[in-house]
Amino acid sequence: MTNRVYNFSGGPAMLPIPVMETVQKEFLDFHGLGASIVEISHRLPVFIDIIETTKSLFRELTGLPNNYKVLFMHGGAQMQFSAVPLNLMSMKSHKGSYFITGRWGTLAENEARKYGNTEILMDGKEFEYRQIPQYDTSSLDQDSSYAHMTTNNTLYGTRWHQFPDTGNVPLVADATSDILSREMDYSQFGIVYAGLQKNLGTSGTGLVVVREDLLGHALPETPKLLDYALFDEHNSLPNTINVFAVYVMCLVLEWVKEQGGVPEMEKLAEKKSSLLYEILDNSELYSSVAHPKHRSTMNVTFHFPQEELLQKFLTESDNEGLFGLMGHAMVGGARASIYNAMPLEGVDALAQFMIEFERKNG
Amino acid sequence: MTNRVYNFSGGPAMLPIPVMETVQKEFLDFHGLGASIVEISHRLPVFIDIIETTKSLFRELTGLPNNYKVLFMHGGAQMQFSAVPLNLMSMKSHKGSYFITGRWGTLAENEARKYGNTEILMDGKEFEYRQIPQYDTSSLDQDSSYAHMTTNNTLYGTRWHQFPDTGNVPLVADATSDILSREMDYSQFGIVYAGLQKNLGTSGTGLVVVREDLLGHALPETPKLLDYALFDEHNSLPNTINVFAVYVMCLVLEWVKEQGGVPEMEKLAEKKSSLLYEILDNSELYSSVAHPKHRSTMNVTFHFPQEELLQKFLTESDNEGLFGLMGHAMVGGARASIYNAMPLEGVDALAQFMIEFERKNG
Repeated sequence: MTNRVYNFSGGPAMLPIPVMETVQKEFLDFHGLGASIVEISHRLPVFIDIIETTKSLFRELTGLPNNYKVLFMHGGAQMQFSAVPLNLMSMKSHKGSYFITGRWGTLAENEARKYGNTEILMDGKEFEYRQIPQYDTSSLDQDSSYAHMTTNNTLYGTRWHQFPDTGNVPLVADATSDILSREMDYSQFGIVYAGLQKNLGTSGTGLVVVREDLLGHALPETPKLLDYALFDEHNSLPNTINVFAVYVMCLVLEWVKEQGGVPEMEKLAEKKSSLLYEILDNSELYSSVAHPKHRSTMNVTFHFPQEELLQKFLTESDNEGLFGLMGHAMVGGARASIYNAMPLEGVDALAQFMIEFERKNG
Repeated sequence: MTNRVYNFSGGPAMLPIPVMETVQKEFLDFHGLGASIVEISHRLPVFIDIIETTKSLFRELTGLPNNYKVLFMHGGAQMQFSAVPLNLMSMKSHKGSYFITGRWGTLAENEARKYGNTEILMDGKEFEYRQIPQYDTSSLDQDSSYAHMTTNNTLYGTRWHQFPDTGNVPLVADATSDILSREMDYSQFGIVYAGLQKNLGTSGTGLVVVREDLLGHALPETPKLLDYALFDEHNSLPNTINVFAVYVMCLVLEWVKEQGGVPEMEKLAEKKSSLLYEILDNSELYSSVAHPKHRSTMNVTFHFPQEELLQKFLTESDNEGLFGLMGHAMVGGARASIYNAMPLEGVDALAQFMIEFERKNG
């Protein structure tokens, strides 16, 4: 294990080491089967058990109400930018309403225009997405088919601390980058979806949590593998599922449970992010991208006064075994993604490096 | 390695042991990176290299002409049942023509009806899909948008030995279950697609080989992640790709190349399948499902005179370390799937078992 770096990648992101070790150990022979879990039919009881365990662990960890279904769908969060309007747009006024707090919200709204009307409830563009704009929910058209939001904005390091009350309009949340890092009341939402590659495992697949009454409204042009009702009917197996991704997610959820569940993940996230924000707030060198009122506990973003200092920071941190700190191309600067799997020691190491770097270069 | 069984699963299916061992060995630390290949950004050079290597190995192994693009898309072959009509139906007469030689062809044609007109050129239903029906290609409407076929039919163990000449109508092939097991002239096709979980690796993702002139015709309602032109433009990275699946595919292609490429895979497939067909043809107990003229070299299917003999066969073979021989639920009986990764020794062991089983139970 001495070769492992502290990995601050934005996603795909680091996984808990015990999860990685289990995958490695049983990769050629799953539980005495004589074959890998990736080499057998997804319809065999041994894999069905994994699906069921994954679903029930997710329910347990989130306190998910009984009237919500847990689906695994192909393609990660961006596939849901299409699936959400395809599945919900036929309801009420055929209008999707969007809270836009960053890049992913913009892409989601663009995609929805193919399938009906859209409206933008607010857009943080004028703030360069460094904060979540105010929005008075009393003005929301209650005849909207749904209202879409992004809970945490990976690029800028912002998040919604409280979720908007949309009344009878189903609230749809892209929670890719903070799912299982904070306690959430799922009954506030119609749909919560997430790509798996940050807090839930590996890439290529999405988790979709959907309230029962939102099933069965898909538009006629919905491709079969984007239809929520079909996935519900077939327990996410209308065709061959991404077996590896569900298997890894199962191990990740077991690990989260062993750590004490979502409340412990939330405490750890607060502690890790506070360490870094304290440095930013006391720094003459680093400037925080996100407004202090809307800071993420998953992605800590900061700029440098000169491009060459950023490059120096990235090179030297990499040499110190602090990996993946380059910010997103659209925002620049540096970004420390500190998802659930990042241990406190990793953030401590980064904090020490940042202090030392400022001392030498400030 | 002593724990490994001979795995005859229909898909997901066994992978070459050297591939599995490489994945296992470098799972926690990819080439000295200090992180797993599944834990880093899909936009880093280290992963871009894997995509490029995978594409160029595939080109090399298949002799793919330069005017074809190689794409990796979410969701396996069934996602292509939607993507094919969404991308091609706008051309010429807005009609998709289907050669139906089994279950997957039927599902593909059903899906296409959402996006335009379809016609069924032939349907092997009356033969219970035990053979590929005759079709006179001179009667094909040259104004069809495309003609769709399934090269190998996993459930029944049949395959097309020769592909139909569709003239100016782009021929679209679902080659999920025999890709890289036989030499194919790709210039005969407009599109060849395949789920990865049989001869190319793990599940959840599809390979799409598409002729350049077929890009850019997507219907307006095409979800962005089903649009071939977008995937071509972004080198299959419009969003986060299934990193693990592409990585494993890369290792599988390297292995195929080391074995001597597609011609050697084809010879091996002929040899392995002949061993089993010879037993079927000389048996009083087993009856071959597929017509001798249209037998697959990848899936060997056979029935038993009584259900209890089948159950006995499945139990005893499983006890002997011959795994996954149950036939598909829609066909019944037994099925030995002998994809590229199945060594000759595995088929020898099955052949011996089948002979001995008949001796005792015939």
